[in-house]
Amino acid sequence: MSPVSFAFSLRATDGHARLGQVQTAHGTFDTPAFMPVGTQGTVKALLHRDVESVGAGIILGNTYHLMLRPGDALIGRHGGLHRFIGWSHPILTDSGGYQVFSLASRRRIREDGAEFQSHIDGSTHLLTPERAVDIQARLGSDIAMVLDECLAYPATHDAAASSMQRSARWARRCRDRFLADATVDENRGPVTNPGQAQFGIIQGGLFPDLRAESVDRTREVGFEGYAIGGLSVGEPIDEMYATVEATAGRLPPEQPRYLMGAGSPEDLVECVARGIDMFDCVMPTRNARNGQLFTSEGRLNIRNARYAEDERPLDPRCDCYTCTRHSRAYLRHLYMAGETSALTLNTLHNLSFYLDTMRRIRDAIALRTFEIFRQEFLRLRSVS
Amino acid sequence: MSPVSFAFSLRATDGHARLGQVQTAHGTFDTPAFMPVGTQGTVKALLHRDVESVGAGIILGNTYHLMLRPGDALIGRHGGLHRFIGWSHPILTDSGGYQVFSLASRRRIREDGAEFQSHIDGSTHLLTPERAVDIQARLGSDIAMVLDECLAYPATHDAAASSMQRSARWARRCRDRFLADATVDENRGPVTNPGQAQFGIIQGGLFPDLRAESVDRTREVGFEGYAIGGLSVGEPIDEMYATVEATAGRLPPEQPRYLMGAGSPEDLVECVARGIDMFDCVMPTRNARNGQLFTSEGRLNIRNARYAEDERPLDPRCDCYTCTRHSRAYLRHLYMAGETSALTLNTLHNLSFYLDTMRRIRDAIALRTFEIFRQEFLRLRSVS
Repeated sequence: MSPVSFAFSLRATDGHARLGQVQTAHGTFDTPAFMPVGTQGTVKALLHRDVESVGAGIILGNTYHLMLRPGDALIGRHGGLHRFIGWSHPILTDSGGYQVFSLASRRRIREDGAEFQSHIDGSTHLLTPERAVDIQARLGSDIAMVLDECLAYPATHDAAASSMQRSARWARRCRDRFLADATVDENRGPVTNPGQAQFGIIQGGLFPDLRAESVDRTREVGFEGYAIGGLSVGEPIDEMYATVEATAGRLPPEQPRYLMGAGSPEDLVECVARGIDMFDCVMPTRNARNGQLFTSEGRLNIRNARYAEDERPLDPRCDCYTCTRHSRAYLRHLYMAGETSALTLNTLHNLSFYLDTMRRIRDAIALRTFEIFRQEFLRLRSVS
Repeated sequence: MSPVSFAFSLRATDGHARLGQVQTAHGTFDTPAFMPVGTQGTVKALLHRDVESVGAGIILGNTYHLMLRPGDALIGRHGGLHRFIGWSHPILTDSGGYQVFSLASRRRIREDGAEFQSHIDGSTHLLTPERAVDIQARLGSDIAMVLDECLAYPATHDAAASSMQRSARWARRCRDRFLADATVDENRGPVTNPGQAQFGIIQGGLFPDLRAESVDRTREVGFEGYAIGGLSVGEPIDEMYATVEATAGRLPPEQPRYLMGAGSPEDLVECVARGIDMFDCVMPTRNARNGQLFTSEGRLNIRNARYAEDERPLDPRCDCYTCTRHSRAYLRHLYMAGETSALTLNTLHNLSFYLDTMRRIRDAIALRTFEIFRQEFLRLRSVS
């Protein structure tokens, strides 16, 4: 069933934490992995060479943004997203569903799909499960996601149940479309990456019974990997961790597990401890652009006047370009002066911190010292 | 008279074009040289490693901006501009005069100096010739400029004459301050670069007699190098070239000649042909941020819809990062989507084009083929 170019190998475990490697049509990446978000075909404020330099093995592209601008048809004509943006490493694309719920105006969810108006020009679009598959086929990402219904938090059990069930029906339709021969229907457009894999998404809010049912129904369809959706949307952190733990425990151990939209550095460590292999989040890049920087000793906001004459690097433990070359005083000056290089330097640092954290997590699992690493990581950050 | 760390060696000439090398306290750079403008301590939209990667041997910092934010006192406490911004190569600073005339509000020019209100917070400042020297001593640039009065274009002979004469008086005061022992006056603040050199500035508008008098009076004071100011302010291009030619011809051949604020790629070639060694201009960086890109075949604006599906690089003759990795279609997408990486990629290309043009100019002078290069360069660009 899996395309030959996709594979997951589990190399070591330490408690529930897992060390692995994902093989795709555009090369491999090690897990646990953090995927920087490259919404519109670029990680904001960085060049691809910067993203490569901090050690990102895979990036994420947003189907919603790309289908609207420059359009999936145009990207398809250019041979797919890798070729269009000049990135030769793995790419995962989401289905567009989450942004339809969070960004589009006047959205209407029907059984056949989600109708919405573009946040760019107000034009009307219908995103069906089949269309989400076709768009991602044209984008040619290495990992495509099914279209799911995104539930608002908080939700009643009834609302969460019917939403989860619709997501399960959509998952079946997405898989059928994914497995159908695209060449028989000329409206499907080009499949730019025959080695593309497809992940299902587990929904069900914070209700253990619904999560369990969602896992069963999604596994029944069968995917190359499984994502946990609908978390990191405002729920208490302990409930999120409990849901991750219970859900991950029901997923097939021989396939990768992706926690969508999470999270903070602490979330990465805590959710690796609960069996997660892949993460994505705008936090390191978005916070960088707001001046909030992650360090081994906690967070700091570079706009703060206390840094005006601070000659120290952002994080004395960090060996990124920003920390080895520049002081907090200079970074604050650039930020206050409105220079875009401030955004680039801040983003470089935050992503370095995230990807370095993932490297340290992988090293600890390999050495079976993950629990020690976890406690030390959390202790250092709670001091500041 | 000259600081021992500053020297200019003339290595070859071809017609009036000159090949040379400038030695400073922070290393050497080859001439003819183009200096990217790093107004607030960064070349806009680039990291220093990007600036180094395109081959910039020296950058320019703006005294007006830096004295207001983060302040020359703060930079002085940090050991000077090189150390504060993390740039180890040569830096030239202007005197701040030009920005007082172009950016500040409610400026008033008196014999003792220029009083103005900051464009950032409205605070009142007095920039005297002595203060311009002291600020640049704290910044510790490798080449400091005298404070001059900047004349509006067009100007009458009388206005140009009295302005030029005031600039000559200020030049004397700047040189006296520069040569005085800074340690005897505690208000002077730190001299962060004892190897700093100082350039005089020739004024006189478009009047040959005034330019000649300005050269005589400025040479009489005596500087490590000479700049031509007051050009590239809206005058007809032929009059600018004629003034450059006549003025450069009166300057001492054994010292570097700097044409301030110029210019277009054509201006660089035409003014090297008239004996200029150094240039600075915001054109490559500012135009890049507006989407206007320089190529071997002329200019293009990446916002144009005709590039939406154009898979070619910006300039097929260019081997910069932008041109070797990305298509016009992708660059247009990034620009239209408002991504800051568009600004970075465009700036990288335009600066590469400028600095590559300077390398080709130097090669041509060394081979004594500069006139052939000049004609071919101008012919290619007039075709498009």
